[in-house]
Amino acid sequence: MPDYQAPLRDLRFVMDELLDFPGHYSRLPGGDDATPDVVGAILEEGARFSREVLLPLNQSGDREGCLLEGGEVKAPRGFKEAYRQYVEGGWPGLAAEPEFGGQGLPHSLGMALSEMTCATNLAWGMYPGLSHGAADALRHHGSEEQKAIYLTKLVEGVWTGTMCLTEPHCGTDLGLIKTRAVPAEDGGYDISGTKIFISAGEHDLADNIVHLVLAKLPDAPEGSKGISLFVVPKYLPDENGNPGARNGVSCGSLEHKMGIHGNATCVMNFDGARGYLVGKPHKGLSCMFTMMNVARIGVGIQGLGLMEASFQNSLAYARDRLQMRALSGAQAPEKAADPIIVHPDVRRMLLTQKAFAEGGRMLVMYTAQLVDTVEQGQDPAQRERAETLLGLLTPIVKAFLTEVGFEATNEGVQVFGGHGFIQEWGMEQLVRDARITRLYEGTTGIQALDLLGRKVLMSQGETLKVFTKEIHQFCKAEADNPALQEFVAPLAKLNAEWGELTMGVGMKAMNDREEVGAASVDYLMYSGYVTLAYLFARAAKQAQQALGGDEDAFYRAKLDTARFFYQRLLPRTRAHAEMIKAGGASLMAISAEDFGLGFEI
Amino acid sequence: MPDYQAPLRDLRFVMDELLDFPGHYSRLPGGDDATPDVVGAILEEGARFSREVLLPLNQSGDREGCLLEGGEVKAPRGFKEAYRQYVEGGWPGLAAEPEFGGQGLPHSLGMALSEMTCATNLAWGMYPGLSHGAADALRHHGSEEQKAIYLTKLVEGVWTGTMCLTEPHCGTDLGLIKTRAVPAEDGGYDISGTKIFISAGEHDLADNIVHLVLAKLPDAPEGSKGISLFVVPKYLPDENGNPGARNGVSCGSLEHKMGIHGNATCVMNFDGARGYLVGKPHKGLSCMFTMMNVARIGVGIQGLGLMEASFQNSLAYARDRLQMRALSGAQAPEKAADPIIVHPDVRRMLLTQKAFAEGGRMLVMYTAQLVDTVEQGQDPAQRERAETLLGLLTPIVKAFLTEVGFEATNEGVQVFGGHGFIQEWGMEQLVRDARITRLYEGTTGIQALDLLGRKVLMSQGETLKVFTKEIHQFCKAEADNPALQEFVAPLAKLNAEWGELTMGVGMKAMNDREEVGAASVDYLMYSGYVTLAYLFARAAKQAQQALGGDEDAFYRAKLDTARFFYQRLLPRTRAHAEMIKAGGASLMAISAEDFGLGFEI
Repeated sequence: MPDYQAPLRDLRFVMDELLDFPGHYSRLPGGDDATPDVVGAILEEGARFSREVLLPLNQSGDREGCLLEGGEVKAPRGFKEAYRQYVEGGWPGLAAEPEFGGQGLPHSLGMALSEMTCATNLAWGMYPGLSHGAADALRHHGSEEQKAIYLTKLVEGVWTGTMCLTEPHCGTDLGLIKTRAVPAEDGGYDISGTKIFISAGEHDLADNIVHLVLAKLPDAPEGSKGISLFVVPKYLPDENGNPGARNGVSCGSLEHKMGIHGNATCVMNFDGARGYLVGKPHKGLSCMFTMMNVARIGVGIQGLGLMEASFQNSLAYARDRLQMRALSGAQAPEKAADPIIVHPDVRRMLLTQKAFAEGGRMLVMYTAQLVDTVEQGQDPAQRERAETLLGLLTPIVKAFLTEVGFEATNEGVQVFGGHGFIQEWGMEQLVRDARITRLYEGTTGIQALDLLGRKVLMSQGETLKVFTKEIHQFCKAEADNPALQEFVAPLAKLNAEWGELTMGVGMKAMNDREEVGAASVDYLMYSGYVTLAYLFARAAKQAQQALGGDEDAFYRAKLDTARFFYQRLLPRTRAHAEMIKAGGASLMAISAEDFGLGFEI
Repeated sequence: MPDYQAPLRDLRFVMDELLDFPGHYSRLPGGDDATPDVVGAILEEGARFSREVLLPLNQSGDREGCLLEGGEVKAPRGFKEAYRQYVEGGWPGLAAEPEFGGQGLPHSLGMALSEMTCATNLAWGMYPGLSHGAADALRHHGSEEQKAIYLTKLVEGVWTGTMCLTEPHCGTDLGLIKTRAVPAEDGGYDISGTKIFISAGEHDLADNIVHLVLAKLPDAPEGSKGISLFVVPKYLPDENGNPGARNGVSCGSLEHKMGIHGNATCVMNFDGARGYLVGKPHKGLSCMFTMMNVARIGVGIQGLGLMEASFQNSLAYARDRLQMRALSGAQAPEKAADPIIVHPDVRRMLLTQKAFAEGGRMLVMYTAQLVDTVEQGQDPAQRERAETLLGLLTPIVKAFLTEVGFEATNEGVQVFGGHGFIQEWGMEQLVRDARITRLYEGTTGIQALDLLGRKVLMSQGETLKVFTKEIHQFCKAEADNPALQEFVAPLAKLNAEWGELTMGVGMKAMNDREEVGAASVDYLMYSGYVTLAYLFARAAKQAQQALGGDEDAFYRAKLDTARFFYQRLLPRTRAHAEMIKAGGASLMAISAEDFGLGFEI
């Protein structure tokens, strides 16, 4: 069975040494509670919970899957009990406002913990995970009454939430949804329609399920401007706020999926279910984006957690498995063969996992700080800047970390050789679970359009400049630091090129809008590599300053990892840059019909 | 359910127009039988068989898997009946010698058909597929008696074969095997040991199973020089050559795998099983390579088949699925939204699949011609040249086509969005089935060492030069063809760089052997891209010459695909070249212990 240790030492490096979280927390209102001691204790307890409670249920949950019987869904054995412990431990409300029963700790702390949940049991983690988006939507857009009824329950975790967006004929293009909301006499609405791919749509972990549902009012304008958001509980709350009458929403079937078998992915049927409008009529899409942005970062963290889990287990295997001698001569002559970690190509795979996981952790925590500042920052200018950067980085966190997360979990399988393909080892489950992260909450292609089209080009590049300027300033400040030149010199070059590539696409897009889509995914991947290069350069600086103390080995390993990233992963930008510059002509040339001429008769 | 049409038009382009198979066949002994009419009829019948018999069993076979009961393995429903039809149709012996009951058609024709089997039902295809390697080993190394007893049965397909190499503690490093062969008085051997990952090790499709088993004799030298090959039948043939007494070999358990569920992957226990030496004592490894090389090309074809299957189905989906409007304005204003094939990023994914499949098909058939020449060529110089090229290209076919095959099947899932993750659509099965191809018959890392270490550097680059010279001559011949410059100019540059990169690694490796392993996988991928670039340049030439006739659309699509490959895939060589040049220092710096400092306490 796979093992897992939360990477607490590396997290401490990122939070305390690299990004000055202690200072950051001290500047947040109520941040006094988030002292280094408290933060450390919570992270350690989270590490224990994920390892001791969640990890043992990961493989069994994958094997068992969920069961739909008589309209009720049973999660795999042990999931309900683990959730009970999670609620009793006060985890659901860790970062929620005290007025709704939360503990008021910073969001970033919840994000750090989330990596551990994703690493040990992604399918389980999605039951409480979906509640965050639902709670955020209600917090930002719900009426006082809705908050009173639903938010406290979600924060306590006694109820869970869902996001009901997708329908059989539309996912990305929500303007096409057919679910209807008809006003009732009492101010409520009757919701009818079918939603698919509803994660945690029905289960036995909580007393009630709060569905946040997109639907159209009778007088709705066409397309995406006519979508409204509704809260639709599984059980209608009675006057005491407890689950009362069963509502007209039910699980029609469970999807058979490639992975995340332990999570119930439901077809949800709304048959005149009672719902209540959240926010203004026809403004559901912007409310939904409140949920989506939180969820997108959450999915990026899933990619991070899965690659860390894969890395740790393939490292253990590579140290243990004896096979062949090193090309340069036996390294463990006393053994029948050398452990495979002596082989450079095995090291390349392990270091790819390690560098992406550590780089991803820096990116997630850098982004987490922005989330704190957006949510609670006291300085309006800083808040605005954080909002801009958060908008820029959200699609990168989501898509880049899931793309490289899938690659890294596959490297984990590859290190195991044929054993990686065998279920008992647990490595292939990480791949199957990781596969969904490139798809849900907006595919990589959709994230890339959001990044290049909406965030970068629609702001005339101003959004990007906020970030490239920060990188530029770092490079300038370190320009005379000879020990950092191996990082700073290439970073400065890439940072300049990032702007040039953006200009290039922008110019082409003025003549042909399709050039945006033609460049978008390569642009996103390029952006991800440069972003990680920036963070690794800062990490290298930090590590160099810390050399000479008690933990030399840790800091040397950090420098080596940064070096590996620069020498053996960052060159991928050369391919992406070329492909961006190549433009879209070769994509658009063939007609839809002619695509199939090789096989269609 | 996924559909599939064998790409007969494209295959005709590759075989008849690009590689002059008619001329090639006419020069082979007995090749008169392989007239264009016969070849065409066989390919059409193979297409029908794969589509009508194998495809309908692919998803059900994946869901059902195999069942082990009382030592007997049942393949999924329908597999046995399909195999019966396959045998009755005379398919197993298509390319085998008439003296053993075969039809004596060229090997290359069997390889073309194999793509269709892999595309429609990989798990089923592995039952007859493994027989080829076993038959080849016996044909090349077996005694006349062994051939008489076993080969005819394998050729007829009434018996199937296996390759029993891997043991729990060794796969790559076969020098470590523990299976023992003790000489018996009658000239036979008693084989004892445990083999794992034995594909088609036990099943109910054939009357008998012929295991080719690696084991060590009592006086065996240490390591890989002490391995011998044995033939171990499930049932010992009686005096009439029919299955007689049950031999001491049995299936201990079936592996639970990520994919290819329909194929029985067995733990095989040999408990004093009667076996017979094949070839000379202690020379089993070279006999095994006879099987392995055939099998490796076969696995490359698996990658090809799976990506073609994925391409065809994602193309159908992309034409059908309506979602969003084209960025440049509605393309299908009469519909609720545009079909997603209008979006450039969807086209990028489809073209990636298409270009890799069509490029892979050219590479496979180019290699298939070499196989024919090696096996049956009449001119010794041509045969030697073909052997050299075949040695060079085998690891590229195996590893490059499975790496990009995995990528392409994943693009297929991605085109489907969330639906790609749902089993019913069949796209995720192609990914799971494709995942094994990067592992078995030698991982990508092992293929890469074979290519760079054994084939290229051990020959002082001479092996590579045979191929780069052919490319060079093509570039020279087309240097003045303005219509081809977009292909020939970059190809000539890459071809020169290929040699330079090889020299560079070779120089470094003289000081440090680990540099070979550090560069190997990037070198293999680089080699794969340049090889496909060469074939696409030739295809472009062919297509340009054919323009102006009845099938203009086909040839224009071929040119467009070649252009896409050059503009949007070939730039990946820039990354691989940089990473090769970066060398291995950053891979070797961290000690095995320090790898885990981020999480180990």
